[in-house]
Amino acid sequence: MDIIRRVDEMMRWVRERHAAGEEIGVVPTMGYLHEGHLSLCRLSLADGGHTVATIFVNPTQFGPGEDLARYPRDEERDLKMLRELGISAVFMPTPEQVYPPDYVTYVDTAGPSQGWCGATRPIHFRGVTTIVAQLFHITQPNRAYFGQKDAQQVAVLKQMVRDLKFPIEVIVGETVREPDGLAMSSRNVYLTAEDRQVALVISRALQLGRSLYEEGERSGERLTEAMRSVIAAEPNVRLDYIGVVNRRSFRAADVVLPMDLFIGAIYVGNCRLIDNLDVCPKVYPLRD
Amino acid sequence: MDIIRRVDEMMRWVRERHAAGEEIGVVPTMGYLHEGHLSLCRLSLADGGHTVATIFVNPTQFGPGEDLARYPRDEERDLKMLRELGISAVFMPTPEQVYPPDYVTYVDTAGPSQGWCGATRPIHFRGVTTIVAQLFHITQPNRAYFGQKDAQQVAVLKQMVRDLKFPIEVIVGETVREPDGLAMSSRNVYLTAEDRQVALVISRALQLGRSLYEEGERSGERLTEAMRSVIAAEPNVRLDYIGVVNRRSFRAADVVLPMDLFIGAIYVGNCRLIDNLDVCPKVYPLRD
Repeated sequence: MDIIRRVDEMMRWVRERHAAGEEIGVVPTMGYLHEGHLSLCRLSLADGGHTVATIFVNPTQFGPGEDLARYPRDEERDLKMLRELGISAVFMPTPEQVYPPDYVTYVDTAGPSQGWCGATRPIHFRGVTTIVAQLFHITQPNRAYFGQKDAQQVAVLKQMVRDLKFPIEVIVGETVREPDGLAMSSRNVYLTAEDRQVALVISRALQLGRSLYEEGERSGERLTEAMRSVIAAEPNVRLDYIGVVNRRSFRAADVVLPMDLFIGAIYVGNCRLIDNLDVCPKVYPLRD
Repeated sequence: MDIIRRVDEMMRWVRERHAAGEEIGVVPTMGYLHEGHLSLCRLSLADGGHTVATIFVNPTQFGPGEDLARYPRDEERDLKMLRELGISAVFMPTPEQVYPPDYVTYVDTAGPSQGWCGATRPIHFRGVTTIVAQLFHITQPNRAYFGQKDAQQVAVLKQMVRDLKFPIEVIVGETVREPDGLAMSSRNVYLTAEDRQVALVISRALQLGRSLYEEGERSGERLTEAMRSVIAAEPNVRLDYIGVVNRRSFRAADVVLPMDLFIGAIYVGNCRLIDNLDVCPKVYPLRD
């Protein structure tokens, strides 16, 4: 496994592989890998060609007061996990190469980035689209893999790829959960044992949304209200948002459809957690 | 010469060429071609591989009240000129493909886009970077050719390519002028015979800047004032801006250096014209 820390070196590596007619799948991450990231690498490995994971804690997607400084990092463990998977290369650029002192260019995708996480974190998605555009240009992948856990990010990146005509297929991997239902996230390390139990309220709320839908409820407003009550009943949680949306536009669903998405974000302890659940599982293909 | 009007068809054309190990040079234009455009195509042809010209009058780089609707077009003449040059393909997409109804993504490069044309035309460079990013993704060129006539556009696009790590070499062709010194522009067609004479004042002003520099003047302020006087002496011209700048940052030069650039924009009749001149010819390589 090649460990590449320089942009020019990564671009040369990619050029050589493409010149040999070899395909590339890229899995962009912020490191501190968990089973969710690994499942994306396995998807890419199964698709053939080379798999490149990127590890970069992207400063431009963190707002002031957010957890950039304390975001968990463990390079040695990450590299060990990736080596065991058998991927071709890891790209770990320094912030100085990604954002040199005179850096001034941003990619902005409105539409699905509006509201929800975009309301709570106003510069977040601009940072995400900008770093992903850079990583796409540096690694020139045929396919790029993202986790459905970050559903709004998926909607924003698919919109960016469509709008700017990136010659790249975006492939979405299903959310990987702990046995008790908590969606895997590098940020789960922030949770105390007590917080960890409290945090389960978000997957319970989303599951209630799905149950009520299965029982025939189709009103986005009533489903949202029911899910909100679940969160409100838990004293040690602060609600950021909860709702049901079109998975492509991220507009709130008035009359809920099978391919829509229940979404939520909560604060537990000093941690912000997001999660989402298909209204109707398996109706909508993950590879659209 | 292939004439391609569909984005997916262009992407397939490019994929086939790259798979065969062939390189691509792209010359993005808004059509109504003149010798400046043709000289860029010849640069690309000389560099080998395939040359692709694009013709698209990009609506997002025109502000309200600007000349989008009356921008000159002559597809038949353009295609004839390109065919005679011997380029491989022309890409002429419809606006509906470039900007579908749910389009929401823009590339924004601050820095060199601030001031000058960026002050007079506030959304202009955002439109330019956005369309060029799209054309780069669609045509996947090894090299892209732009004219030095649009010097601020060159600075902005080079900054975008550096910042977003496009794997593309930007090559700049020298400004092509009419025998009397007027820089070639598709917009020159707007000029009446009388306007045509009046318009020469801009290249005269820039030439005076260079002469004074050659005589030893190094103050950006005094050089600008001298050039401004030349424009002011011409009653049928309205000055937009005139100045001397660093060619990379487009910041006004306080103490003028050999690699700086005299720049100006004027209104003549119903036409806005821009021009620029190297402070010191041939010192700064056009291929940097």
